[in-house]
Order: sequence, then C-alpha cells, then structure tokens
Amino acid sequence: MSLMQGSVSKITVRDVRFPTSLEHHGSDAMHGEVDYSAVYVIVETDADDQITGHGLTFSLGRGNNILAKAAEVISGQITGCRIADIFGNFGVFWRKVTQEGQLRWLGPEKGVVHMAAAGIFNALWDLWAKRAKKPVWKLLADMTPTEIVNLVDFSYITDVLTKEEALKILEENKPTQGEREEQLRSGGFPAYTTSIAWLGYSDETLVQKCREALDEGWTKFKMKVGVDVADDRRRSKLIRDQIGWENQLMMDANQRWDVNDAIEWMKQLAEFRPVWIEEPTSPDDVLGHAAIAKALEPFNIGVATGEQCQNRVIFKQLLQAKALKFVQIDSCRVGSINENIAILLMAKKFNVPVCPHAGGVGLCELVQHIAMFDFLCISATTDGRVCEYVDHLHEHFVYPVDMRKNSYMPPKDPGYSCEMKRNSLEEYEFPNGRVWTKLISDGKFKL
Amino acid sequence: MSLMQGSVSKITVRDVRFPTSLEHHGSDAMHGEVDYSAVYVIVETDADDQITGHGLTFSLGRGNNILAKAAEVISGQITGCRIADIFGNFGVFWRKVTQEGQLRWLGPEKGVVHMAAAGIFNALWDLWAKRAKKPVWKLLADMTPTEIVNLVDFSYITDVLTKEEALKILEENKPTQGEREEQLRSGGFPAYTTSIAWLGYSDETLVQKCREALDEGWTKFKMKVGVDVADDRRRSKLIRDQIGWENQLMMDANQRWDVNDAIEWMKQLAEFRPVWIEEPTSPDDVLGHAAIAKALEPFNIGVATGEQCQNRVIFKQLLQAKALKFVQIDSCRVGSINENIAILLMAKKFNVPVCPHAGGVGLCELVQHIAMFDFLCISATTDGRVCEYVDHLHEHFVYPVDMRKNSYMPPKDPGYSCEMKRNSLEEYEFPNGRVWTKLISDGKFKL
Repeated sequence: MSLMQGSVSKITVRDVRFPTSLEHHGSDAMHGEVDYSAVYVIVETDADDQITGHGLTFSLGRGNNILAKAAEVISGQITGCRIADIFGNFGVFWRKVTQEGQLRWLGPEKGVVHMAAAGIFNALWDLWAKRAKKPVWKLLADMTPTEIVNLVDFSYITDVLTKEEALKILEENKPTQGEREEQLRSGGFPAYTTSIAWLGYSDETLVQKCREALDEGWTKFKMKVGVDVADDRRRSKLIRDQIGWENQLMMDANQRWDVNDAIEWMKQLAEFRPVWIEEPTSPDDVLGHAAIAKALEPFNIGVATGEQCQNRVIFKQLLQAKALKFVQIDSCRVGSINENIAILLMAKKFNVPVCPHAGGVGLCELVQHIAMFDFLCISATTDGRVCEYVDHLHEHFVYPVDMRKNSYMPPKDPGYSCEMKRNSLEEYEFPNGRVWTKLISDGKFKL
Repeated sequence: MSLMQGSVSKITVRDVRFPTSLEHHGSDAMHGEVDYSAVYVIVETDADDQITGHGLTFSLGRGNNILAKAAEVISGQITGCRIADIFGNFGVFWRKVTQEGQLRWLGPEKGVVHMAAAGIFNALWDLWAKRAKKPVWKLLADMTPTEIVNLVDFSYITDVLTKEEALKILEENKPTQGEREEQLRSGGFPAYTTSIAWLGYSDETLVQKCREALDEGWTKFKMKVGVDVADDRRRSKLIRDQIGWENQLMMDANQRWDVNDAIEWMKQLAEFRPVWIEEPTSPDDVLGHAAIAKALEPFNIGVATGEQCQNRVIFKQLLQAKALKFVQIDSCRVGSINENIAILLMAKKFNVPVCPHAGGVGLCELVQHIAMFDFLCISATTDGRVCEYVDHLHEHFVYPVDMRKNSYMPPKDPGYSCEMKRNSLEEYEFPNGRVWTKLISDGKFKL
C-alpha cells in the first residue's frame, strides 16, 4: 500500500481535561491552579488501511474550548485534501494552512490558531509515521536531507538560515548518524525532572519528592521560583541540602518578572548555582532576555526560554540577540515538527543547545521524538542537552514514554506516541465525561 | 447617579460579518479575499440607568467564531463584577483579566485571547464614557495624570518606562491642553486614505479612485505593494501621475517579504518617494524591522508597523531597536485603550510619531479617540501624525466618523462610537442574518 493513499475524510476534535488543580500539580509563579488539558485531534482517511492519526495540543484548562473551536475551523481547510498533497510537499502545505488569508489575521502564527494548528499537524505526523510503520523520530531520521528541508517553511528566517545552509548541516551529519542511533538505542536521551518542586508543594512534600527522585537515579532537577525571594532562598537551600552540589539545579520563574527585577532576584539566588533561569520575563521580550543574559553571565547563570515562544521568528531573534543559552522548544506551541525543525536548525547554526520543554499532558510523549531527531541529524551530540520530564498523566497514553533512570528510551511503536486510551478520552471529556460529571455534581468543580 | 453604580449583569457576544470579498475591497499581498467582520460585544449592568456598553473586535471573516468563543470565555470572568471594581482601578482589573492563570497559556497577551479581550474592554470603555456623557477622547482628556497612569499595566515595560516617567509626561502637557482642544475642535485630526489602491483593483478603478480622493481634498495616500515588483512600479507611476509629487504616498506590503527581500524590493520603489513602507515583514520580527529600517534610511523611506503587533512588549522593543519611524497602533489588536496608552507613552519617550491603523469595520470609529487623546495629552502635536482612513462600512454605525476634507473631526456623542445599528447587526449576523442567508441560498457563499 502506498504511504500517500487516499484523502482526509474526517477530523474529530475533542476537549479533554484532567482535574490536576485538585492536587496542586503544575502550580508556579503565574499559574496558581491549573487543569492540564488537551484538544485531542483524530484524522481519518478514506484509505483501506484503517489507520488514523492522533494528535493533541495542550492547555491549562479554561479556554481549552477556544482551542477546540480553532481546531475545528482549521480542520475545514484540511478535510478533503489528498494525502499526497499533504505529505508530498509538507512544507508548502504547512505554509498554506498557517498563512490562510482570513485566519492569519488572528495570529499570524501565534497563540490560539497556531497552537490549534499544531494539534492537527501532530495528528498528521502520527498518521504518516503509523503508515510508515515507524516511530516519528525514526521516520525523520530515515529521510534524506532534501526530504527534511522540504518539511520546513523558511519564510521570515532566510536572513539567518537559508534552505541551502540547512541542507548542508543535515548532509554533514548523515555519515555518522548510525553510530548515534546505536548510542540512542542503548542509552536513551538525557532528561531532568520537574516533579520535585512545584510552588504549591509543602516543604515536607518537597523533601520527600527530592528523595524519591534521587532514589530513582535523577541527577538534574528543576524548581519553581519567583513569588517571594526569601521563600525561594529557603526552598533552594532545602533542595540543595537534599540533592547536593554535584547534581544540577535549574530554576523557573514562569515569566514573573520585569527585566530589572529578574536580574536583581537572580543575583540573590546565584549562590545556589542554578544552571539556568527559565522564563525570567515575558516570552515576547527578545531584547529583555538579552539584557538579562548579559547581566547574569558573570554569575554563570544561563537564560532559558521557549515553551511560550510563539514561533520560529521569535526563536530566530533570541538567537540573533544572544538572549539565551538553552532553547526550549515545545511540541504544541509552535507549528508541530515542521516548525520545530526550523528552530533546531537555527539553534545548531548558533551553537546553542536545545533542551525541550515537556510535562503537561502528552508533551513528554511528543517532544522526545524531536529531541532524538535533533541528536541524530542536527545537533549530533547530547552534550549540554537535556529534555524535561514530569511524572504525570502518562497512564492515559497507549504508548507512554519509556524512562530508564534519567533517560528517555527511544519509542518503538509506530506513530507520534500521543494516542490516548479510549477509556481516558471518555472519562475525562469536558464537561460530560464521567470524571467531570461527578466533580460537578459533588460541588468540587463549578462550570 | 454615580458613575460606579451596579455590577455587570450580562455580556452578549455576536458574530457579525460583511461580505466585502464580493467586491475585492481589502485585498492585499497576503489577504486575497476578505470579509470584514466583527465580534460585537454588549455589556449590560443592573444599574437603573439602562446604559449598555458596545464594543467590538475585528477580523477578516473566517475564524470570527473563534474570536467569539474566546470573548464568551473571557466574559465569564467579568460578568458579576462590580463596576466600581472595574473602573475604580482599571489597570489592575485589566491585568487580572489578561493574566488569568489558565487562559494566559493561550497567549499570553496575544492573538485570539488578546483580541477578544480588546473587544470586551472596548465595550467597557463605551459604557464608562456613556455614563460620563462624554465621548471617550474627552473622558480621557478630562482625567488627571494620576487617573490616566492608573489605567495602565506597566508590567514588562518598566525597563523603558516607569509609572513615574509616564506621570511626568502627562503632567508636562496638562497646562497647554486647552489650546490643543480648541485646535482639535476647529480643525480635527489629520488623516490619510487607503481607499485608492487595494491590490484587487483594476488600473481604471485605481485612477478613478485617485481622482475622486483628490476632489475630496485628500493629500496623503496609501497603496498596497508586494506581489510583483514590476507591477508595483507600474502602479506607483500611475498613482504619482495622478496625485503628483507634493502629495504624500505611503506603501504597504502586509508582511509579504523576508528581511533581505524587503530591502531589495524597496530600493526598486524608492524613486516613487514613499514616506513609509508598512509591514515589510513578519510583525514579530523586531530585529528584522531594525535591519530594514537601517538599510532604507539612506533612501529616506521610514518603516511603519503595528496593526498586527500583538502587545506593548513588541512595541517596546521596536522602539528600543530603532526599528520604526511610525507607530501604527490598532484599537482591537492590543488590549484596548488601556494598553494603547502604554504604547503612546513609550512612543512619546522615544519621540516616534503614532499614526494609527484603521479601516476594516469600526476601526476608524474607535481609533480616532486614541489619536485625539494622544494629541491632547501625550504627543502634544500633530506634526508627522496622520490617522488612516478607509471609506467603508461606516453606514452601519449609529455614530459614524465625521470627516471634513482630510481630517477626523472630534466625536461629540457620548461613548466610543462603535455602536452598530440594530438593523445592521441583524442583517449581517453570521450565518443566520438575512444577508448571509440569501448569499448562501444564492450559492454566492459556501459555509
């Protein structure tokens, strides 16, 4: 059967939410109580193979229905398209969808419409990989450099990276790719954990989570900061007392500060030797991040950001302005794998490591593929690279991540690993799934 | 009766669209056929005065229902709020809404959720001004400097503008405000016209539109460019032949180019002496605009942008990077008047003129108030300032703009001037209003 058979016959969009706020998971300096949620997308075709593509985009609860509405509207452009016209020139198709003449006014390429598009493109990637009977990372790794650059829309970034330069990067890495694939299959891709130190946790929970994580073999840890500097110092000490000074500690402010506040605050946390300060200020503030990066360089604190950076144009500028030491791509914020490849290539050109954002629901499952592809075909190293891991909600997935100690092991199942269990989809559908009906009738949740 | 009486009792959101694509109005290099649309918001209170606030946010047709859904979700935070808690500290309330802990993930402060919030805040401003029995520009102009700075959320911009600096700007202008108000009432605020040269127009239409505009007294004209340079040169010559060299010509590429393309293209149009090139590239590309601005400076072409700049953080950087000579604020893209005041103040600090974007549906009605307030209280001059005007769809408004020759005359009616006629709302409601039902049944429009 041809990979390119048939047309898209139907796209289903579902609003799925998990009541994580009840347990204070996911709380940080800007997002007090959140319910990790997904707009879940299923792409069906009229081909004989019965293969469907499953994708998602992520949110924090309220507004998941706005994302769902956007996914429905964008789906209208894709339903009926021939699969050959989608994957045959995926970069061009991606641009057609993200630059649609009326919808682009609502972005362009940012916020709700771009995140919704990511959910749909994630489902298309799942479909393609399942048809090819490969996990997405392997589908990508087996492509030729030319096939890979054709996945990407280079518009608005040619002043720093042309298609020709991208091709050259990919070609240079091809001869040694096999060795890296062996390394990946045996050792996996390095990870760090964020599960130890959400802001909503008590000191007891925090200490307990540190100990559990150390027992599991973790060596890199991230904590949330930014509400109260004295409290941050106390919690930093508590964590360093547990994890010691050999292990790595990262800090995350979730955009809490203005530029000068970020600099002053981090000087007061420098003694705890954080590897990076993540999201010190608005994700839109390229020049602000550059100022913070410059001021914190003497303290050996790098700036990291990306999970809320809207598209490749913002990443391009962050790199141009030397505003970050760690590029944190996200699988659902920008336009799926297609746009993330552009970002990986630019990071390579500027020699800045990519350390993906994950967590939420399904983000670990998705982004691991991109991190592994980066290692195999673009960065060609794991030095200084580390992918976020949060131990949460994996039980809802048919092909959950396979963690060994502090590493992601490469997925073996075909697809993009974000297919949810049918039962989970039904129980957590909002607001009429069983879990939500009960929470609402018990008065634990107000519509 | 107190201005602060009562609570918000109900917010109604309507999807209203005009089939402008049938006549090729509004076509440009990136938006082929567009249907100017509005998400129309009505805020009701439980006060005795029966006064309702009417606001809108603007889109190009498809996706207007996404915006409407977002406006409904955001309304959930506002319904039930006491009016005193809204207007009593409007800057704080604005921040509470735009930084809501779950919804902010969908922005933050950008795209669909921010544009929807703008629609609601526009309605709140209309309500406030109607209660005060003043047009919005006069409501603002009569506030004290302290009252004005309290409308603004300064977060993420204090590295270039503090509340104290803002206060100083406003206080310095207060003594001479009366003279400017007289000048405004007699002469209005200067405007330019974009109605002459949409890309979809034939040469005959173009020539005819130029002649009509000259007859009406226009002296400043904007044309669309960016699809074909030879065609742009031909059309530029055609327009210069009509309007001569004393009148001003502006050019607008609607984000068509990459950075280097923009520079090369505009060199080929320099001989037609455009005052500015508008939206040469992605609205997110601060450093790109800065590169273009630097390259085009020897040709005396300024860079203008803003109608798709998502928030004050992007404007802050455009100003920091010397990336533009004209700041084009929009009344529906950023968070209404509250956020536009922050942008006006930053533009004043950097000494860059604000030349608002208008057109669409209702944008002229809205933005004129901001331009006039800027003149009275912030910029204190009309030198180099000019507000866009498009002669289109004004007939649907209860208090349409009052143009005298090439100037906006200050609105006299209470409110924010964007209340639509009841009949227009009903006829153009999408998809069940009379106009759309007929277009659909005649096969001129496909759902």
